[in-house]
Amino acid sequence: MKKINIGLIGFGNVGSGVVKILQQRKSLLAQKIAIEITIKKICDKDILKKREVKVDRSLLTNDANEIINDPQIDIIVEVMGGINPAKEYILSALKKGKHVVTANKALLAEHGRELFAEAAQRGKNIYFEASVGAGIPIIKSIKEGLIANKFNSIFGILNGTSNFVLTQMSKENCSFAGALNSAKAKGFAEKDPTLDIEGIDSAHKLVLLTYLAFGRIVSLKDIFIEGISRVSSADIAYAKELGYEIKLLAIAKKETDELEVRVHPTLLPREHLLSSIDGVFNAIYVSSDLAGDLMFYGPGAGQLSAASAVVSDIADLTQDIKAGLFRPTLNIVEDNLVKALRKIDEFESKYYIRITAVDKPGVLAKIAGILAKYGISIASVTQKERLKSSIVPVVMITHQSKEKNLRAALKMIDGLPDIKEKSVAIRIEGV
Amino acid sequence: MKKINIGLIGFGNVGSGVVKILQQRKSLLAQKIAIEITIKKICDKDILKKREVKVDRSLLTNDANEIINDPQIDIIVEVMGGINPAKEYILSALKKGKHVVTANKALLAEHGRELFAEAAQRGKNIYFEASVGAGIPIIKSIKEGLIANKFNSIFGILNGTSNFVLTQMSKENCSFAGALNSAKAKGFAEKDPTLDIEGIDSAHKLVLLTYLAFGRIVSLKDIFIEGISRVSSADIAYAKELGYEIKLLAIAKKETDELEVRVHPTLLPREHLLSSIDGVFNAIYVSSDLAGDLMFYGPGAGQLSAASAVVSDIADLTQDIKAGLFRPTLNIVEDNLVKALRKIDEFESKYYIRITAVDKPGVLAKIAGILAKYGISIASVTQKERLKSSIVPVVMITHQSKEKNLRAALKMIDGLPDIKEKSVAIRIEGV
Repeated sequence: MKKINIGLIGFGNVGSGVVKILQQRKSLLAQKIAIEITIKKICDKDILKKREVKVDRSLLTNDANEIINDPQIDIIVEVMGGINPAKEYILSALKKGKHVVTANKALLAEHGRELFAEAAQRGKNIYFEASVGAGIPIIKSIKEGLIANKFNSIFGILNGTSNFVLTQMSKENCSFAGALNSAKAKGFAEKDPTLDIEGIDSAHKLVLLTYLAFGRIVSLKDIFIEGISRVSSADIAYAKELGYEIKLLAIAKKETDELEVRVHPTLLPREHLLSSIDGVFNAIYVSSDLAGDLMFYGPGAGQLSAASAVVSDIADLTQDIKAGLFRPTLNIVEDNLVKALRKIDEFESKYYIRITAVDKPGVLAKIAGILAKYGISIASVTQKERLKSSIVPVVMITHQSKEKNLRAALKMIDGLPDIKEKSVAIRIEGV
Repeated sequence: MKKINIGLIGFGNVGSGVVKILQQRKSLLAQKIAIEITIKKICDKDILKKREVKVDRSLLTNDANEIINDPQIDIIVEVMGGINPAKEYILSALKKGKHVVTANKALLAEHGRELFAEAAQRGKNIYFEASVGAGIPIIKSIKEGLIANKFNSIFGILNGTSNFVLTQMSKENCSFAGALNSAKAKGFAEKDPTLDIEGIDSAHKLVLLTYLAFGRIVSLKDIFIEGISRVSSADIAYAKELGYEIKLLAIAKKETDELEVRVHPTLLPREHLLSSIDGVFNAIYVSSDLAGDLMFYGPGAGQLSAASAVVSDIADLTQDIKAGLFRPTLNIVEDNLVKALRKIDEFESKYYIRITAVDKPGVLAKIAGILAKYGISIASVTQKERLKSSIVPVVMITHQSKEKNLRAALKMIDGLPDIKEKSVAIRIEGV
């Protein structure tokens, strides 16, 4: 049986998972792909640490160049994370004629253009199934399974930590801080959860999904990013009363000939399937023009889940190598219906608005007057019970409105003497 | 650019969809796969009928052998449906060295063993993504995306007609007959809906999923099949009160070293994601040992949705052909943890039971006595309000019980003079 050697850069959590699977499923994989995958070298800065998998000490090195320069290694698997030196390692490996498997969404989101260009020039591949939704085969599905489709939109719950926090807030009626603490206690949030909670991790993944579905590599700065740290339990409760759940969505959406790319808390109607995605799970809702609306759901993280995706990439690459192919389905084609990225000011949406006002005659009239002035029409208004003394929250759902106008209106409203808190606006999707 | 010729057998609904996509996405596909796909011949028994797509009259034939015997055609696409002559055409095409794409679940379910063996012997492939869940890339996902995984279970809502009927009954509170009429009126049910409603279509698809996930081709007769025609609106309402929805599930499930394969109405807890799958949509819930619990959702039927899957199969095959590969990821490996198929008598489940009894002292005691005699223990009992005169429905949820014992107990209960209707038992899953 033909053998293909791989080199692993990074022997942490996911790296150990990859080793475990390749060891335990060696014969299963060989039967399926008719190739024997051999780990020839593993690089990590710490090669002495005891790990949950046993490997021959001779495989270990702390010099990545031993892998990159080894002509017998055809595939490098980068699971060390971080930008540098992962980027240099991948570029060097491509230059040495190796294919690359990586789970590094941050790296691909920030330097994908350069890395994919280098791979194309060398006739090599970079596979990255594990970088979005861990073991959910979303990348293969978009790239291969839906190969003939054009896409209208992708809505993703791409960050398990944020979804866990929002689910806790919704089901347990607790505050953001309480939910985040509970996520930390369960190991679902890192000590510094900024990347997750502020939508950066979702944005990294959105760059990759946008590339796959629309053929465009967008920059992080092209993405409007708003995290969940300002979502209050009051908003979740009011949204629920109105028939909505609040989810942190990563959205790439075609609007006529422009593409919107954004990450923000979103009100979704309860009947929308994404509203039912609870806890640390991920789901990607893909609206395609031939296959229709599809959803892919699963754990968005986890050692074996991510490693499962890495191994499927390795298996695919072995086939490419055996065939001597520059796997052509990797050709990602720009959707020629998309002419430009839409600027945040031009976004249009329905909005949930919560304004905290003094409960006295004439305030609602003033608010309504300002909204009307900016052309924002209101679909429903609910004045909630008084919270304390004379303060009342006024909750509104708008009709389709321009973001720019809404922001201007809220700024003016927040300047009124009777407004006691910064007003809240959350976009509504899926209606 | 290299060209690959295909021949289409069947120019009906899906066939026309395939032609439409290959025409309209010709350049997109060529850019992606670097191969030009050309339709060289289309066979249909009626070549005069006006169709929604235009093709050159010279492509049309009513003799399938013109395709099968054409040495310039590398791929035949069988979308005529039915068992004969589709089976003969596919076998002949394989013998002539062609690869096959088919959407024909009934044919593969009934004759898959013979067809796949012939393909393997000839070093050719049969791809069938469209046969389960139409455009949902479930087959590619199990076969390639989850290549390293072993599977614990697959739960599928695989028949849109049945799911539409059950959804109508649940949401609109209507009878089975009423819901079925509404499905017919909307074009979601055929004139004779037996195959859909009685679970046969789901069973066909289950054969294919079982093959992919567990490496075993089971016969239809190995599958316990029960349709939805005896599900009453009362059961749906009572189930809902207890926190469940009723879905027609196709299930392949490992229990220790045995495999259960079955299709039947099932109570699912409302929180289970499959409970939220409404209308004609399909969803496949896959429990895997590495990637965890995944779900794939989308329209389970439709011209372009099915054609989208057919075209992705064609695209994959062009790559195999270009590489001269017998695509090795097609090797389907038997799960060696599965030693046998479990017989229906040995199934164990929790059950929802509804017994219709005369409301008089001692009846419940008799029922409970019989259940106890058969070792069936009860988790909850609700005696509903009287329906008419002195008849009351008694609804119970059992603990884990053997199917065999439950059937015997119900038979004895139904023999009691105070039982006025055949008792109902529905399996519960997902708890």
